[in-house]
Amino acid sequence: MKRPGTFYGVGVGPGDPELLTVKAVNVLKGADVIAVPRSSDSSADGLSQALQIAKRAVDLEGKDILELLFPMTKDGDTLASARREAAAKVATELDSGRSVAFITLGDPMLYSTFSYLVPFVTELSPGAPVRVVPGITSFGAAASTVGAPLAEADEKVMIVPAAYDLGEVSGLLDSADTLVFMKVNRIFDRLLDLLVSKGLERKAFLVSRAGWPEERVVTDIKKLRGVKLDYFSTLIVKKGGATT
Amino acid sequence: MKRPGTFYGVGVGPGDPELLTVKAVNVLKGADVIAVPRSSDSSADGLSQALQIAKRAVDLEGKDILELLFPMTKDGDTLASARREAAAKVATELDSGRSVAFITLGDPMLYSTFSYLVPFVTELSPGAPVRVVPGITSFGAAASTVGAPLAEADEKVMIVPAAYDLGEVSGLLDSADTLVFMKVNRIFDRLLDLLVSKGLERKAFLVSRAGWPEERVVTDIKKLRGVKLDYFSTLIVKKGGATT
Repeated sequence: MKRPGTFYGVGVGPGDPELLTVKAVNVLKGADVIAVPRSSDSSADGLSQALQIAKRAVDLEGKDILELLFPMTKDGDTLASARREAAAKVATELDSGRSVAFITLGDPMLYSTFSYLVPFVTELSPGAPVRVVPGITSFGAAASTVGAPLAEADEKVMIVPAAYDLGEVSGLLDSADTLVFMKVNRIFDRLLDLLVSKGLERKAFLVSRAGWPEERVVTDIKKLRGVKLDYFSTLIVKKGGATT
Repeated sequence: MKRPGTFYGVGVGPGDPELLTVKAVNVLKGADVIAVPRSSDSSADGLSQALQIAKRAVDLEGKDILELLFPMTKDGDTLASARREAAAKVATELDSGRSVAFITLGDPMLYSTFSYLVPFVTELSPGAPVRVVPGITSFGAAASTVGAPLAEADEKVMIVPAAYDLGEVSGLLDSADTLVFMKVNRIFDRLLDLLVSKGLERKAFLVSRAGWPEERVVTDIKKLRGVKLDYFSTLIVKKGGATT
């Protein structure tokens, strides 16, 4: 029996191909197979954007691209069966001794499909080593782009993902100094109302597609009311400092 | 008058020289001057560890190294005067048309001296462009090392820096799903007591010097009671999942 290949989770960062780490570049260069998460929902085809970024960073010519389908659903059975199917494809490659690099936008340990996939893969290929290469997050790149520190001294930072309960958000705004709202597009107007009610609307900025040619930074966020926002939009609220 | 040089803040990541981004490597290669924060407190000479990492990632031979002293004090006047003095040194280089790359462990926008320095530098050299290159954070690397996702789905992450008020931490533990305690060495035993009282001690792991040859991962954190911990120790509490 062949020695199984290594299963890598590789963060390709937020968009700028120069924001891959040297390690990510080296792992992608050395991998036999590049696994790419795909969504059935084309409006969020950001999932295949990881591949666009990787291709601009590394010559992937000649490598096998393994597309893995992860439907955008909350149905547990559908999700588990999609993950099992994806894991089986990965395990087949690993068991034949080939290394597989699963690429993910941002960081593989933060809201990535990779972490869901690992238990299924290790069940099927228990001998395959799993290695994770961290990536620059969208909010890290957003803060760098704007030149606005996420935190200084004793400030606390809260990262809030896309599944917002706005009742809860009100309390969160009291608990941290900086709040990062990821994929804020769906609830932006209501979040804006909440920020206005707390006098925080001038302490926030929005960054869409940080590190992409289409990058957009908005510091006067009241102008965004009613505007259709990009799927990859992050709102950062810095209670300690005005941004406009 | 010469066109002023660019002032870069460059994150060199947590320790592994391969965890610099390609952009960080390119900026360091192209910079005329490498500015290095130094502390007068040798116990925290991690501040010069950024230079060790940068040197392992990039050949800095022949570049000017500009050491900038930032005393470890809470005295506002001393701090402001040290920052002003450091900024003056940077501005002198920028005004002579040379680019300056200020290196920082982790990310320049997260608890870094760089963000304090920028206002002083832009006051002295208002024409000098400021650019920030994000870096992999210590906790991002720690999660990758352990293979423990920081967050999935709707989980919220709270980043808590070294200036702990333990009374407050108790409340924080209720407000997020994952908590990242940075530079936890000084208060570890008391934080451990708090975690035990909440039944969370088996849902935490500690990583020291993530990405260094001396990297250490401890999942049974009760063993660390009374142990002198490394200055660069991060404790991650994942309420949703056991780590041991």
